[in-house]
Amino acid sequence: MVRKRVKREVRGCVSAHARANESVAEKVLEVARRRGFIWQSCEIYGGVSGFYDFGPLGTLLKRNVENAWRRFYIKEGFYEIETSCIAPRAVFEASRHLECFADELVRCERCGAFFKRENLERCPECNGTLRFEGTFNLMFQTHIGVMREADAARAAGTAEASRKSERGEAYLRPETAQGIFVDFVRLLKFNRDKLPFGIFQIGKAFRNEISPRQSLIRLREFTLAEAEVFVLPEEKNKHPRFHEVADRMLKLVPSSEEGASKASEVSEASEASAEEGEALSVSVGDAVRNGIISSEYLAYHIARVQEFLESVGILKHRLRFRQHHKEEMAHYAVDCWDAEFWSEKYGWMEIVGIADRGDFDLTAHSTASNVSMAVRNDRGEKVIPHVIEPSYGIDRIIYAILESAFHEEQVSAGKEEKRRVLRFKKEIAPVRAAVFPLLNREELKRKAEEVFNMLREEMQKQGAIVVYDDSGSIGRRYRRQDEIGTPFCITIDYETLENDTVTVRDRDTMQQKRVHIGELTAFLNVG
Amino acid sequence: MVRKRVKREVRGCVSAHARANESVAEKVLEVARRRGFIWQSCEIYGGVSGFYDFGPLGTLLKRNVENAWRRFYIKEGFYEIETSCIAPRAVFEASRHLECFADELVRCERCGAFFKRENLERCPECNGTLRFEGTFNLMFQTHIGVMREADAARAAGTAEASRKSERGEAYLRPETAQGIFVDFVRLLKFNRDKLPFGIFQIGKAFRNEISPRQSLIRLREFTLAEAEVFVLPEEKNKHPRFHEVADRMLKLVPSSEEGASKASEVSEASEASAEEGEALSVSVGDAVRNGIISSEYLAYHIARVQEFLESVGILKHRLRFRQHHKEEMAHYAVDCWDAEFWSEKYGWMEIVGIADRGDFDLTAHSTASNVSMAVRNDRGEKVIPHVIEPSYGIDRIIYAILESAFHEEQVSAGKEEKRRVLRFKKEIAPVRAAVFPLLNREELKRKAEEVFNMLREEMQKQGAIVVYDDSGSIGRRYRRQDEIGTPFCITIDYETLENDTVTVRDRDTMQQKRVHIGELTAFLNVG
Repeated sequence: MVRKRVKREVRGCVSAHARANESVAEKVLEVARRRGFIWQSCEIYGGVSGFYDFGPLGTLLKRNVENAWRRFYIKEGFYEIETSCIAPRAVFEASRHLECFADELVRCERCGAFFKRENLERCPECNGTLRFEGTFNLMFQTHIGVMREADAARAAGTAEASRKSERGEAYLRPETAQGIFVDFVRLLKFNRDKLPFGIFQIGKAFRNEISPRQSLIRLREFTLAEAEVFVLPEEKNKHPRFHEVADRMLKLVPSSEEGASKASEVSEASEASAEEGEALSVSVGDAVRNGIISSEYLAYHIARVQEFLESVGILKHRLRFRQHHKEEMAHYAVDCWDAEFWSEKYGWMEIVGIADRGDFDLTAHSTASNVSMAVRNDRGEKVIPHVIEPSYGIDRIIYAILESAFHEEQVSAGKEEKRRVLRFKKEIAPVRAAVFPLLNREELKRKAEEVFNMLREEMQKQGAIVVYDDSGSIGRRYRRQDEIGTPFCITIDYETLENDTVTVRDRDTMQQKRVHIGELTAFLNVG
Repeated sequence: MVRKRVKREVRGCVSAHARANESVAEKVLEVARRRGFIWQSCEIYGGVSGFYDFGPLGTLLKRNVENAWRRFYIKEGFYEIETSCIAPRAVFEASRHLECFADELVRCERCGAFFKRENLERCPECNGTLRFEGTFNLMFQTHIGVMREADAARAAGTAEASRKSERGEAYLRPETAQGIFVDFVRLLKFNRDKLPFGIFQIGKAFRNEISPRQSLIRLREFTLAEAEVFVLPEEKNKHPRFHEVADRMLKLVPSSEEGASKASEVSEASEASAEEGEALSVSVGDAVRNGIISSEYLAYHIARVQEFLESVGILKHRLRFRQHHKEEMAHYAVDCWDAEFWSEKYGWMEIVGIADRGDFDLTAHSTASNVSMAVRNDRGEKVIPHVIEPSYGIDRIIYAILESAFHEEQVSAGKEEKRRVLRFKKEIAPVRAAVFPLLNREELKRKAEEVFNMLREEMQKQGAIVVYDDSGSIGRRYRRQDEIGTPFCITIDYETLENDTVTVRDRDTMQQKRVHIGELTAFLNVG
């Protein structure tokens, strides 16, 4: 995932924006906390900034998103691998994370609190003067094996020195990508020495942020879903399936004036974005032909990112792709576009980074390890493959899905009561359907449980969850399910006992339909 | 997961056994490495002991096992949560891992290498004298936030002291369970204050083992799948679904003579285990009635563990349940049984621990955090719930599956060549089917690709992978798929072009059947 360190102006504007719109986002987060989607880790010990737990409903939602993501990239023909979270110093020395993956640190002279420099002038907590304290590496450090300080000293110059790397300094990975690069030779062999190929990984990454305060947006432990596509440099501009995406429209914010002027020439419509500059509507094909996006591979993956995000319920009109300015680009990137989501709380925020990492990583590890990672091209020359990387921040995507899905509306004219509903796509909703007996009577409950057990088993084959609820009025049970985004509520009434039909109530239209029990499974899939 | 620290004799005997049987296990591991199931992490940097990566096929296998496990416990009505891997010192102080989760450390006076004490007398590497060095805590330590030594000193006695816990000492979790206990109050509320309920988590855990040398068996970073069942103490002996498992037979090795003698009274058959003592065949119901297993809840979950392990292809005759001796029990356990797998390389090895943790953890966190975790029982008394925990070591289970599935056989009488085949259950095989054109001719390849694309899409809906292969002879392609455990190989020949039928070759029987293309999906599911 691409790290941005110089986006100060943008962040400043985000915080100003945040204050104005807190109420909507606070409602989303309040529902999410109360109903068991997410909460801060270790709450009973006062919580720890930058760490969140996913509760039962949040985990169901997250699994559904991760599985949709996995299926999406398996369909691209990519393979998943799983590499370790802890890696020795050598890996991050080679990747230059030890040197470059740092933020500028300031400290309040009055209260002693630390902050990320950004464009702060005074302490946000006590208004004291801030003092620059140097750079702070954002990786979590640990040690593998028995390593005590006395040992380290003794180790120098003895036979033990050779063991030092094994027992020594290690870091928690700040991105999952390095595990894939380090395994490149194995992976190339698995692919029988042929390029291009894609490898992905879904897993935890860790960044010791200086003072994170934004729930799911800036976490110290978070989930990345990263795909690394290895391609010969001379083939970057001819993706075999480019035609499938060439006509799709993207909203682009190029980084240079030149890029912006090229884009406006081919743009079908331009759209003023809420806070900064303009996003231009350009087709994927035009963007490559006019040099706005640097290669077919990069553009192809930008288009796929947009497709995936829409498929999990992120609203298209709240999405754009913004190119990194040279100064904000990570040390390994040649070109990079962020998929940004317009959050009512945070303004435009990165949820996916799509980077052309060039040959930076493979060259770095090849040099450091002395293991060749070159591949022969058609002309028989040895070249280091290039890497195109879509890197998804899953937690931020979950947040964007929650905000996209959240609606609050009058229940009926004149009434105070508001209906809160999460309009998740049915495929990713934590719960697919709820089963209710209309009344708390034995014969209805018995039948409802029977329907529930049948349905639960059927739906589970597809990984979908069904719940049972017989507590409170039907209206209250509907509200309860609306609030957690359950697309279908199934009620068993006296007609059910007569003819085996039930009412299915649709979350979004609130319409009810009578459906035969035998057709329920199909109905819940098509809706 | 239950940690064993006193099992010295057993381990000693395991190593003796290991030497004798290296060849079979080496073949399994050689196939696993070469074909992309697993390999040591960071090989290009010389590897790091105790860390393994899952390659493309290993990850497919692992996902299938994890998903089967998830479905199994969702069917029990349990919910999944996801808590953070890093937790502050307070958590492990309360759980007593800081105090108790340690091994005894020895060091060679000659070469300086560290070892776990176990029953070693001389250095295994240079035969030098070993010196006892005290205990070594097995948790990986790190720090959250900006924490420099000078700061820590300054922090004492200032307003900053209160921030210390946030910025301070933290550990990588040695088991996923603690995250569930810490969240108990939230989870109880999610369950509307009703007991019993079950919560599970699948995720990474980390243990800084002193000198791990056993591939997937003793890892420093590994995957646990843990379920925590919260139940009122007075209800531990009446599990509502006990009747479903009461008649199942278990092979038990009780820890006490008393337990063994009770077991032999009701045992239908006794079986001498390969290395130590006897395993007694007892029904689940008899085991509880006769006090061999201490409660219905514990026995119920032992039975479910056996059911799950068999369902993913672990051979029943290589499974037994061994009760922990008092001295080897983890500090939090009241009673504990290990599901052990008979490995040709490692002897009897723990793959699942099923523990009665009593009220240890909730009492500990309740006391430390001052947050009440008591629940009212039927009589209106406030009691701390008890915890029954099946804790699965997924990496060891993967190893057990590989060893269970591995077969080597003569291809035909008199021939030297051996056929290596992994007989995975078809539901968990990394690849469900491979599609081949019989010959390398355009018309066959075209048709084969068409069948492949259709099948790939259909099977992906169920999360199953299909591959295409047109390289080398058909015989060689069969061997390639046998070696990675693909249950079905589909060949497109000239008859396919005439009547849309293909041959499907079964991995285990090596029989071929002609199947119509339209019936392929169903055939691959039923087989």
